[in-house]
Amino acid sequence: MTASLQAALDPSAIAVIGASENPDKIGGRPLLYLSRFGFRGEVWPVNPRRDEVQGRRTVPHLSALSRAPDLAIIAVPGEAAVAALDECAEIGVKVAIMMASGFGETADPEAKAAERAMVARARARGLRMIGPNSQGLANFGTGAVASFSSMFLEVEPQDGPVGIVSQSGAMSVVPYGLLRGRGIGVRHAHATGNDADVTVCELAAAVAADPGLRLLLLYLESIPDPHHLAQAAAIARDRGLPIVALKAGRTAAGQAAARSHTGALANEDRLVDAFLEQHGIWRAQDTTDLVAAAELYLKGWRPEGRRMVAISNSGATCVMAADAASTAGLDLAPLGDETQARLRAILPSFAATRNPVDITAALMTNSALFSQILPVIAEDPSADAFLVGVPVAGRAYAVDDFGRDTAAFAAATGKPVVIVAPQELVAAPFRSRGLPVFSGEGEAVRALHQFIAHHERIAAAGGRPPPPAPPPPSEAALRLLDEAESLALLARAGVPVVRHRRCRTADEAVAAAETIGGPVAVKGCSAEVAHKSELGLVHLGVSGEEAVRAAFEACRAGLAKAGHAPTGVIVAAMARGRRELVLGAHRDPFFGPVVVVGDGGTYVEAMPDVALLLPPFTQAEVRRALGRLRIAPLIAGVRGEAPWAIEPYLAAAVAVGELMTMEPRIASLDVNPMLVGTEPGDCLALDAVVFGDGLPSP
Amino acid sequence: MTASLQAALDPSAIAVIGASENPDKIGGRPLLYLSRFGFRGEVWPVNPRRDEVQGRRTVPHLSALSRAPDLAIIAVPGEAAVAALDECAEIGVKVAIMMASGFGETADPEAKAAERAMVARARARGLRMIGPNSQGLANFGTGAVASFSSMFLEVEPQDGPVGIVSQSGAMSVVPYGLLRGRGIGVRHAHATGNDADVTVCELAAAVAADPGLRLLLLYLESIPDPHHLAQAAAIARDRGLPIVALKAGRTAAGQAAARSHTGALANEDRLVDAFLEQHGIWRAQDTTDLVAAAELYLKGWRPEGRRMVAISNSGATCVMAADAASTAGLDLAPLGDETQARLRAILPSFAATRNPVDITAALMTNSALFSQILPVIAEDPSADAFLVGVPVAGRAYAVDDFGRDTAAFAAATGKPVVIVAPQELVAAPFRSRGLPVFSGEGEAVRALHQFIAHHERIAAAGGRPPPPAPPPPSEAALRLLDEAESLALLARAGVPVVRHRRCRTADEAVAAAETIGGPVAVKGCSAEVAHKSELGLVHLGVSGEEAVRAAFEACRAGLAKAGHAPTGVIVAAMARGRRELVLGAHRDPFFGPVVVVGDGGTYVEAMPDVALLLPPFTQAEVRRALGRLRIAPLIAGVRGEAPWAIEPYLAAAVAVGELMTMEPRIASLDVNPMLVGTEPGDCLALDAVVFGDGLPSP
Repeated sequence: MTASLQAALDPSAIAVIGASENPDKIGGRPLLYLSRFGFRGEVWPVNPRRDEVQGRRTVPHLSALSRAPDLAIIAVPGEAAVAALDECAEIGVKVAIMMASGFGETADPEAKAAERAMVARARARGLRMIGPNSQGLANFGTGAVASFSSMFLEVEPQDGPVGIVSQSGAMSVVPYGLLRGRGIGVRHAHATGNDADVTVCELAAAVAADPGLRLLLLYLESIPDPHHLAQAAAIARDRGLPIVALKAGRTAAGQAAARSHTGALANEDRLVDAFLEQHGIWRAQDTTDLVAAAELYLKGWRPEGRRMVAISNSGATCVMAADAASTAGLDLAPLGDETQARLRAILPSFAATRNPVDITAALMTNSALFSQILPVIAEDPSADAFLVGVPVAGRAYAVDDFGRDTAAFAAATGKPVVIVAPQELVAAPFRSRGLPVFSGEGEAVRALHQFIAHHERIAAAGGRPPPPAPPPPSEAALRLLDEAESLALLARAGVPVVRHRRCRTADEAVAAAETIGGPVAVKGCSAEVAHKSELGLVHLGVSGEEAVRAAFEACRAGLAKAGHAPTGVIVAAMARGRRELVLGAHRDPFFGPVVVVGDGGTYVEAMPDVALLLPPFTQAEVRRALGRLRIAPLIAGVRGEAPWAIEPYLAAAVAVGELMTMEPRIASLDVNPMLVGTEPGDCLALDAVVFGDGLPSP
Repeated sequence: MTASLQAALDPSAIAVIGASENPDKIGGRPLLYLSRFGFRGEVWPVNPRRDEVQGRRTVPHLSALSRAPDLAIIAVPGEAAVAALDECAEIGVKVAIMMASGFGETADPEAKAAERAMVARARARGLRMIGPNSQGLANFGTGAVASFSSMFLEVEPQDGPVGIVSQSGAMSVVPYGLLRGRGIGVRHAHATGNDADVTVCELAAAVAADPGLRLLLLYLESIPDPHHLAQAAAIARDRGLPIVALKAGRTAAGQAAARSHTGALANEDRLVDAFLEQHGIWRAQDTTDLVAAAELYLKGWRPEGRRMVAISNSGATCVMAADAASTAGLDLAPLGDETQARLRAILPSFAATRNPVDITAALMTNSALFSQILPVIAEDPSADAFLVGVPVAGRAYAVDDFGRDTAAFAAATGKPVVIVAPQELVAAPFRSRGLPVFSGEGEAVRALHQFIAHHERIAAAGGRPPPPAPPPPSEAALRLLDEAESLALLARAGVPVVRHRRCRTADEAVAAAETIGGPVAVKGCSAEVAHKSELGLVHLGVSGEEAVRAAFEACRAGLAKAGHAPTGVIVAAMARGRRELVLGAHRDPFFGPVVVVGDGGTYVEAMPDVALLLPPFTQAEVRRALGRLRIAPLIAGVRGEAPWAIEPYLAAAVAVGELMTMEPRIASLDVNPMLVGTEPGDCLALDAVVFGDGLPSP
């Protein structure tokens, strides 16, 4: 699969169907670009009405070509585009870029069907299609700029270490424009459009293999094929290539807009978060965010921790940098006593020598202070990263020295440095030395945090295989397992389950209650009832033979009254822990099995405090997920309480993840409550509901 | 008070103590600025060693002046600065700007004491001081630029509608630089430094009175005098002048940095939020944020609602604008059927005519589409505001027409419009017509949301008097009221309290239980015990004479055993509601009385879900505060539950606010639990603890 996409990125010949003399037409612009940006392969314009366009000989039809090109650009609209695609398949083109609009992104069922049909025909003959509704591919490394974007007329390209792969045309070039404006070279700027065949994720996997890249940016409106994105992420991690993705359609309003833009299917946004984190991809919230930390990635720094030192000639920058660091989750490095003593010897008495280091307005009368303190701070081992803020300076200051000395400082420490310099005059000498410059403390610290946290995320993601995507059970065939079956299924999977017995008669129930000892729970079982309380099928704290018999009969009567087939009565131990958690799982149509962990109770939907995990995951990941919840402080114990024995719950969550992966016939399961307490044995599933298709009765 | 500050903003004469020939010295720069920026009053340089500086005749000492100047700039350091301040007071200067550093912002107790002493001496003689550690005041309306900032050398001033008042020197001019870079005129750029006498808030009140202002920006590291800020806000609201404040020192790390910057005292950050909201001030999170919506404020738009329409030639902009709107809290306006029909007649079939309106890449071949659809959308009454995004265009597009037609559209509708145009070529024709241009959807929508939400906040804040600041009770004298006293105090204040009686004997307890009826709670009372449960002083669900007597004796025994003086035993009705809330109050050293409302229960500290309110406030404000909490969905009823009867709780919160205001002897009170249920009568205080000084026994 990837080989043909590589051919699209580096084709030996390109045919342009609908080639135009006018470079402002969709069929003219790629011809202009292929000439202008140095494409060295062959270019074959196809136009039945002209012998020559833009100085190149045309052919009237694809079939007139002596051999099939690797790549064909289809720049004709509607029906003609569909016919051209079929011709491409006929002659053996590897990849066609379909620029025509009006297919799957419209509300028209016929247009959607036409899109599906043409993809099916192309695939059957080995042709891959990019689009329809695609702005095209642009590779400035090979000069294969098969795109009609206006942007490359406005902003001069320069080959470089950044790749951009986008569903949207605009978002393939807006980041390009922002990066080029900052002097950064961009190699790839690809737009896949409707993703009817080749998806943005599949193309990303092909682009991630480019050894020249050091940063890969993605714009996605839908992730219908997570396995391709997982593959791209795995390729990128192997090569140390960071991926930053902007997944739009975060909200219901955004998803509705995406549907009519690229025909994008809606993803559950919290799963997008979980998936991207799992695969080491950083998620940007908007366009600005997508490119915010680019310079940091391109410097080749390897961050080793979260302790930052802030240095400024403004106390306000110190305060705001400290605020921003705390908010983002960076620490202020504690500078050593010796470092502080050396700084005090240099700086005026009213300067601050703790971290943040405030040079004060004394810099105005002595520019040398700046250069004198940097080597002192560089020698302190406590820092992992630096923020240098010069919010105000000017011609009276040695700003060029500031830039030079900070660059030397960065080179000496090998640690990430961000600069805050809202005045262009001050920013220039830092920027010209390749240092990342920001106009505010907030932006600088957020970019630094992203850079550090992204590396942590990549390190945690290492080695995970792309997830399989088992077909979900058919909705129609779903069957509810009764409580006893559900508990048995979970117990076999390794989930600790409350001591219980399924009883067919009152005598059995009495015997079970005696064996279990103490007061028991008596519950009516039926494969037709998911919510028992409402039907009077739950009797708690039942003590003594009489009471057990009465509860047994009440359950039988309750089921009979509601017209549900009984499958016995459960007699279970009464268990008490410290808190009722939930442990659930279901199948997402895109991301496959999903495990839900977190707080339980009556209001789990109204006031959710849960995290989603995508198998496979480890106990450490469950622990980390719980650590972000509101209940996190309770786990460690508050107000003198003993900590929870949480490990059995972590193990149970992992077991449920494995069960969902191994047993594709389970559609969903819900353990509620799952008790936890201060002893490992307190962790017990008290009740469970499983839905599935074709599951054997345990 | 304000009159003398007005004199500092518009002085008839300014003395410069420590006047220097060198405009790069602190004593030279203000002289340069006073000449360069057209100050029309008199300027008297004071320098005992030179006859002339910067072309002006000097006087050797202040005492040599024939009359006292309104304003004196003290540009000498240390002891000499202190002496100069005393001289200013001696001759009757109204305001002195103390630029010297090394006082209250240091860790040195002697320097802090010197600062306090000089302020006391100045105040005693009617001299107001700005600073020390002040960069100075700059008023480009009067030319009174008494500042040593470098910024006015680098970025040419232009008088305009924006005022900036800051504690920090850098933050008085960084926003200036950012706004001037966007072509916006700035009148005031003041830095107050340590605020040892005149505070940033007091100066803000003086500046707010300037009728030429249309936007006031504040940078604060501490709010030790909220009444001054309330006064500034009231003046501004009367004039329709919006205030945006960046309060730094949000976090513990930021507060520590602020202490060594301007000696700032730490404010409780959630109270800063509550206070600013109450007074109609918008809170910016960082520098970029502080100036982000400036253009919107200066257009004179009056937003009327939150329904936005997004229009773009890029589907991605549509998706991201919709996401950003949902995230920020703006709605997408539903365009009418007729509007959509008219749009369909103009746009290609694959364009989106719902909101967002996606013109699509068809704009590339027909620039007129842009101008054709705007008048159609302008006629739809459903929109309150617009986002126009042109993320990509170029020379092939009629971008100048886009700017012209959008400006006409904005003028025709009179509604706020924000532009998204990351390319400078595209941005220019919009910006040159005074439209607010942003480089990303996120920034544009956040600015629009701020502008709309800020106007809502100002409208809600109207008419509130500045809060009084009663002196807090002395810590040493605080006394705990026992439960009966506490409940009585609350009941008198209008808080519904559970039916109960204080009993001195077992017989009284039995009689009380009979009168109350049903099972009762029996609780030991003592003014020495805040937490009763641990001492076995709480007996719930007590039924029958025997049991009441036993509980009474157990309480007496429990108190005796713990060595606490008994003050009786409470017999109270057993009340059950739907949820236990909290209702508390305390006094903040800066903001005065604070009322805490929200969810109760065991883990109220570990998992807080509470809001803070500053009296005076209304029931509607309590409701709004509860509406932002996690428990908000429960109030309306979830899972088929009846809604809570919340009104008595709202009234109780208002009553507690009034009690704290009227009775300054109360230090804190804590009603926990405060029950709520589905009936108004369910709302009851079940227990309470009050601390105060000199409170009469009820």
